[in-house]
Amino acid sequence: MNRIMISNAVINGEKRDIYISGNKIEKISGCGDPYPANEKKIEGDCHCSHEPFTVLDAEGMTAIPSFANMHTHAAMTMFRGTCEDMSLNDWLNKVWKMESRLDDDIIYCGVKLACLEMIKSGTLCFKDQYWRLGPTVRAVSEMGLRADLDYPLLDQNDESKDDGLFSKACEYYDSSLSWPETIRFSIGIHSPYSVSLNLMKKGAAFAREHSLLINIHLAETRKEIADSITLHGKTPAAYLSEAGILGPDVIAAHCLWLNDDDISILGKHGVSAVHNINSNMKLGSGYEFRYDEMCDAGITVCLGTDGCASSNNLDMLETMKTSALMQKAWRMDPKALPLGDLFNLATRNGYKVLGLDGGRIEEGALADILLINTDGYAFTPHYNFLSNLIYSAHSDCVDTAICNGRVIMRHRKVEGEKEILEDAEREYVKLLD
Amino acid sequence: MNRIMISNAVINGEKRDIYISGNKIEKISGCGDPYPANEKKIEGDCHCSHEPFTVLDAEGMTAIPSFANMHTHAAMTMFRGTCEDMSLNDWLNKVWKMESRLDDDIIYCGVKLACLEMIKSGTLCFKDQYWRLGPTVRAVSEMGLRADLDYPLLDQNDESKDDGLFSKACEYYDSSLSWPETIRFSIGIHSPYSVSLNLMKKGAAFAREHSLLINIHLAETRKEIADSITLHGKTPAAYLSEAGILGPDVIAAHCLWLNDDDISILGKHGVSAVHNINSNMKLGSGYEFRYDEMCDAGITVCLGTDGCASSNNLDMLETMKTSALMQKAWRMDPKALPLGDLFNLATRNGYKVLGLDGGRIEEGALADILLINTDGYAFTPHYNFLSNLIYSAHSDCVDTAICNGRVIMRHRKVEGEKEILEDAEREYVKLLD
Repeated sequence: MNRIMISNAVINGEKRDIYISGNKIEKISGCGDPYPANEKKIEGDCHCSHEPFTVLDAEGMTAIPSFANMHTHAAMTMFRGTCEDMSLNDWLNKVWKMESRLDDDIIYCGVKLACLEMIKSGTLCFKDQYWRLGPTVRAVSEMGLRADLDYPLLDQNDESKDDGLFSKACEYYDSSLSWPETIRFSIGIHSPYSVSLNLMKKGAAFAREHSLLINIHLAETRKEIADSITLHGKTPAAYLSEAGILGPDVIAAHCLWLNDDDISILGKHGVSAVHNINSNMKLGSGYEFRYDEMCDAGITVCLGTDGCASSNNLDMLETMKTSALMQKAWRMDPKALPLGDLFNLATRNGYKVLGLDGGRIEEGALADILLINTDGYAFTPHYNFLSNLIYSAHSDCVDTAICNGRVIMRHRKVEGEKEILEDAEREYVKLLD
Repeated sequence: MNRIMISNAVINGEKRDIYISGNKIEKISGCGDPYPANEKKIEGDCHCSHEPFTVLDAEGMTAIPSFANMHTHAAMTMFRGTCEDMSLNDWLNKVWKMESRLDDDIIYCGVKLACLEMIKSGTLCFKDQYWRLGPTVRAVSEMGLRADLDYPLLDQNDESKDDGLFSKACEYYDSSLSWPETIRFSIGIHSPYSVSLNLMKKGAAFAREHSLLINIHLAETRKEIADSITLHGKTPAAYLSEAGILGPDVIAAHCLWLNDDDISILGKHGVSAVHNINSNMKLGSGYEFRYDEMCDAGITVCLGTDGCASSNNLDMLETMKTSALMQKAWRMDPKALPLGDLFNLATRNGYKVLGLDGGRIEEGALADILLINTDGYAFTPHYNFLSNLIYSAHSDCVDTAICNGRVIMRHRKVEGEKEILEDAEREYVKLLD
């Protein structure tokens, strides 16, 4: 059994030792007990107790839970910087052209690059939607991250494709039964406007039969709402509700253009919402995410970056900051989305939505832990840790990352980093004309 | 005469050597000439030509001009994290209470901290407004930065204070004649609502008599506009125009609530505008900065962070990103504020407004240069440098900083960093209850 002691980490302002056993936080103690001998707290492997363990010296560091990035298309990290300052139409055309050139190697190298970035910016758990899950699982597993991956059912309302797509999803489900325990499979329904009712219903029924989550894009643009009303006489949320697609197993990304009725529908069904502010702003989709109203309706809100074709990075600290600034700005209320809420959106809410007992530094929780270096100017003065972390610092403050009880970054070093960057650089040119 | 060769730096995609002589960029050559011997390009001091020079090896780095942060209250870096999630009234009361406790030591240590942060995030030139210029000049000078400092005339419309305030400004002007060449003095008029007409006019006349810039807060909140119309029957911009305050020497910070007439007034007078998006959003002041309209009116727009009580850091990369995202978002146009414009706003426009020949890597310009490390994941793939720099990377990509021809950071090391952080930590507690 893997055992780690993180010594002298600050948690909520107090110095503590954190004991990890297997993939869980076993115990958090006052500093010094229950391993009283000081020499046991020196960095390295310790064989002095009945069970050997590894000590990580966290002197001067603050321990926080990993962030959960709840909406990604990880392989699209390969598209970083390729689609700038374009109309949404040009952007879509360019992305689709590049996607038509994807192969397993590009996906594998793109996901490795994404995982590297996520580890270095403190995200050890993510919810992804993309094609070619085989190389994705291989990459995520090698990098030691926790992920929930779905294959998007996307027939562009052409039902002749449905059997093929559905079979593919079933195949992935079957293969997922032998995936590592940290990687789960779920059902992707791309969006209410791009998937036929027939395929949506088949996908949702399959998900419920096998207790899988359902991931869907919802109410991302104003046009989507207008088109839905023209076509179905109702909003996308109402349309999905009446089709029986919504439920507590549904994760809806974006949720930007919801009216009061939509919010109440999502709340009633226990749907969770993922706010992706940087992507929404950069694509000019909108920004008036109705956080307060969604909370009041009982919706669990969490945060995501979306893929790098739109938001350019996978940085959850940045996402937190922009989310809060934008809430305060559009509501013209500097008290909107306060720090405590903001931190929970990016941590425990994501884990909760994925049905995982993590996103918190507490005994019994999954050992997905970050050690934050608070030495630099961004944390000076040391008055308000959360404010400094979210509003002042950048991701280079993440010193150490532990995922599922395994150290995957120590002092900002990740195994194989150079090769990952070189491989990505070699592969991305295949995407271009 | 100080001479530096930066060897093998990438400029606009091409490898170049940059020759600095004194405080200027003397020459930019094709790689290899006019110093043909390869051994001359090794890092360190070189005495092999008729004039000795220092070589900085920039292999793998991209050279860009320094950012100009055009609206700061540097000493307020000491307030970082102290005023979170408060109403504007509570925020002001807390800031004023802390400001009443300021002394020279706090200011000096706060400005040192601010300068450290600016160097490490690529800002080597800034426009500041605050009290106690003595310790500010000492701190900026020790850190080797370029700054334009003004003392704010601020009588809260109580004309009995005017003589004292005006004398103080005159004293600072006199002492500024012996400041280092990199630090200039200008006149601050806090805002049209907080300064009496009499004092504004005296300040502006003094500025024009001595060819000084005038720095003013303008149209920051909707309330300011409403109050001005109630009190004067006109907008703040129209009020300032009629009072003869506006001119090409005026730098107006915020400019968030301008109607078409206001924009045309500012354009006609040649006023420059500083956009401080993070501060505006965080305080809930607004966000619909009319960039396109202001450009059309001939207004030179540049960017600032504002003080750390509102924006929490002094990071111009972050400011660029939020500015662009917000323009794209509120206009619902992903083509708004494209990358090239964005970069100019943060670099050459600021220098231009300060009347300085800098903010560009060109022969004859001031040698205020950054070397950007493009090795990491944020720059992978290496497709679009500006996009990666602004939308993907963070300030830890700034490897080297040269200000006025002097190296003030090399490989992210700044002299005295540890002491600056310790001193700030010691001093800030004086601000608190």
